[in-house]
Amino acid sequence: MQTLNVSLGDRSYPIRIGCGLLGRNELLGPVVRARKAAIVTNETVAPLYLERLVATLNQSGVAAYSIVLPDGEAFKTWETLNVIFDRLLLEHCDRRTPVIALGGGVVGDMAGFAAATYQRGVPFVQVPTTLLAQVDSSVGGKTAINHPLGKNMIGAFYQPRLVLADTDTLSTLPDQELRAGLAEVIKYGLIRDPGFFAWIEDNAELLLGRSPEALAYAIHRSCRNKAEVVAADETEQGERALLNLGHTFGHAIEAGMGFGAWLHGEAVAAGTVIAAELSCRLGWIGPADLGRIRLLMERVGLPVVAPDLGVERYLALMAHDKKVEDGRLRLILLRGIGQGVISDQAPVAAIGDAILASCR
Amino acid sequence: MQTLNVSLGDRSYPIRIGCGLLGRNELLGPVVRARKAAIVTNETVAPLYLERLVATLNQSGVAAYSIVLPDGEAFKTWETLNVIFDRLLLEHCDRRTPVIALGGGVVGDMAGFAAATYQRGVPFVQVPTTLLAQVDSSVGGKTAINHPLGKNMIGAFYQPRLVLADTDTLSTLPDQELRAGLAEVIKYGLIRDPGFFAWIEDNAELLLGRSPEALAYAIHRSCRNKAEVVAADETEQGERALLNLGHTFGHAIEAGMGFGAWLHGEAVAAGTVIAAELSCRLGWIGPADLGRIRLLMERVGLPVVAPDLGVERYLALMAHDKKVEDGRLRLILLRGIGQGVISDQAPVAAIGDAILASCR
Repeated sequence: MQTLNVSLGDRSYPIRIGCGLLGRNELLGPVVRARKAAIVTNETVAPLYLERLVATLNQSGVAAYSIVLPDGEAFKTWETLNVIFDRLLLEHCDRRTPVIALGGGVVGDMAGFAAATYQRGVPFVQVPTTLLAQVDSSVGGKTAINHPLGKNMIGAFYQPRLVLADTDTLSTLPDQELRAGLAEVIKYGLIRDPGFFAWIEDNAELLLGRSPEALAYAIHRSCRNKAEVVAADETEQGERALLNLGHTFGHAIEAGMGFGAWLHGEAVAAGTVIAAELSCRLGWIGPADLGRIRLLMERVGLPVVAPDLGVERYLALMAHDKKVEDGRLRLILLRGIGQGVISDQAPVAAIGDAILASCR
Repeated sequence: MQTLNVSLGDRSYPIRIGCGLLGRNELLGPVVRARKAAIVTNETVAPLYLERLVATLNQSGVAAYSIVLPDGEAFKTWETLNVIFDRLLLEHCDRRTPVIALGGGVVGDMAGFAAATYQRGVPFVQVPTTLLAQVDSSVGGKTAINHPLGKNMIGAFYQPRLVLADTDTLSTLPDQELRAGLAEVIKYGLIRDPGFFAWIEDNAELLLGRSPEALAYAIHRSCRNKAEVVAADETEQGERALLNLGHTFGHAIEAGMGFGAWLHGEAVAAGTVIAAELSCRLGWIGPADLGRIRLLMERVGLPVVAPDLGVERYLALMAHDKKVEDGRLRLILLRGIGQGVISDQAPVAAIGDAILASCR
């Protein structure tokens, strides 16, 4: 087991990465200090890992209530959130009852927002079971639900007390979701860790072949990058925005195609290619770097061609993104591999051209 | 104008109290540093003060969008909250667009929760227009909506950047609401400021007669008490719970009668009498103090007899309150006038007896 720390003063917490962690009650015990806990999971993950987590909690004398949601981004709504609230209230959960998210990014986002707002905040634990959640969404305290007009529009910054990334859970992850998670892994290389990008290029086949060592290394290095960024800028006043590389375009793809049609990581991959295309058109990276990015995405089986929604529709959807400030579109672009920048300087015409070029 | 400061590190903010503040753009300017702002208000307050606030913002070159909600606690729901979100999204409000609450406690709670969760948090300003909001709910960062199973069950701790208490707005406040606000004023005297309690006894008629000097003094001293408590315990881990004197019983009254049937302050007044009755039955205060409390509530026109919901129903409703921890009911009781205590030691039988005695 490896442990990283997210340094946020009195909101600091450990990320524990390794195999067999779901069965180790000494890891959960110090955090779950109530007589009961609520586990939020979904219909896909519940049959695989719920029993194991409940048994571990029971060993510590903690009764566990399970709240099993339907699976998918399409359910990241207020209605599903209310299913959690109703159950917490019916079970008389109080301000010390921990909420534990067992699942991928959607479960973590919803359980986290429920924990942030139930009785104005209860203890929260992340047990991510997808690669995407283990390398990205479970760390850093972003929680949210979607609104018909935009993704993650309603939410809170709310840090977990513990992240437990049990790499055993990746064994049941569908290939498509493994690849979607790699989009966020590649992101860290692109925005701030060129050595990691090169490592992924060298080890792409091992990652796709689910080598435990390669996956554990990628998760650890991704989390280390994320923890450093979050510690420096918890509420995204500056540097943290770099983590959104590909996400403004990606969110437009997800919203435009209907939430759930594309996996988040797939949309981020295509969005990252648009951002790289735009960076190249601005003369900030060369065609060789653009080619490396596109090739690596292709090699790990991620989409590099964006859906043809029409430039106007992209721009309209992006205008609703949280990265807009005082009417200017703030994008994450690249000045090189490993060198992400936040910029509101890209002309709308260039943005449109980059979208158009990436839809073919 | 008087200014108090709520000391919370980088979340510190001023409370400004005085007449004519709605018209002073130099007070709002430093906080509203965007080109537009959203004002959340209700159908009762809008015709009275909205135009004035909009004009003040316009003077600073800020465009103001108004979101006018129906009036009343019955609307403190997710559905009404969504009216705010929809409008913020339609107007392309971004993470720097301030949300300004213009109204009483319900408007402040909902606008505050919207500000806390829209795009994971935008700047928030409180412009309270009722006595209750000026002395209590606008200060301290508690925001929430109700759930059918309990009051303020879904919410967040989210501090405003500024509280602007313009005492001119009290001139249009109905008598019933003025009296409801006095319940919270009396509360500060009871839990921690015996000299203030005596001052209210001496000045009750001036307050009811809306003497500007008496009201300004009561607001300032109430806010000073609240600011001290909040600065010491922002998220209610301990001492802040004292501010809930009468509230656990009061919430049961509000929920049991249907949200909106009783004003919050009225329910708190009756709830405070139950808490005093219980404190007396436990031998913690004498009959003379109980009599003083009951008499002062009566003199300012507040209910001292609780509605007869039946003891079982009270206990069931209180079991859903946020003040329950690990199944024990935590109540705010009195060891004297000016001496509130947090206790989970009251036997259920004694709680029931106190409720019964207060319903007659």
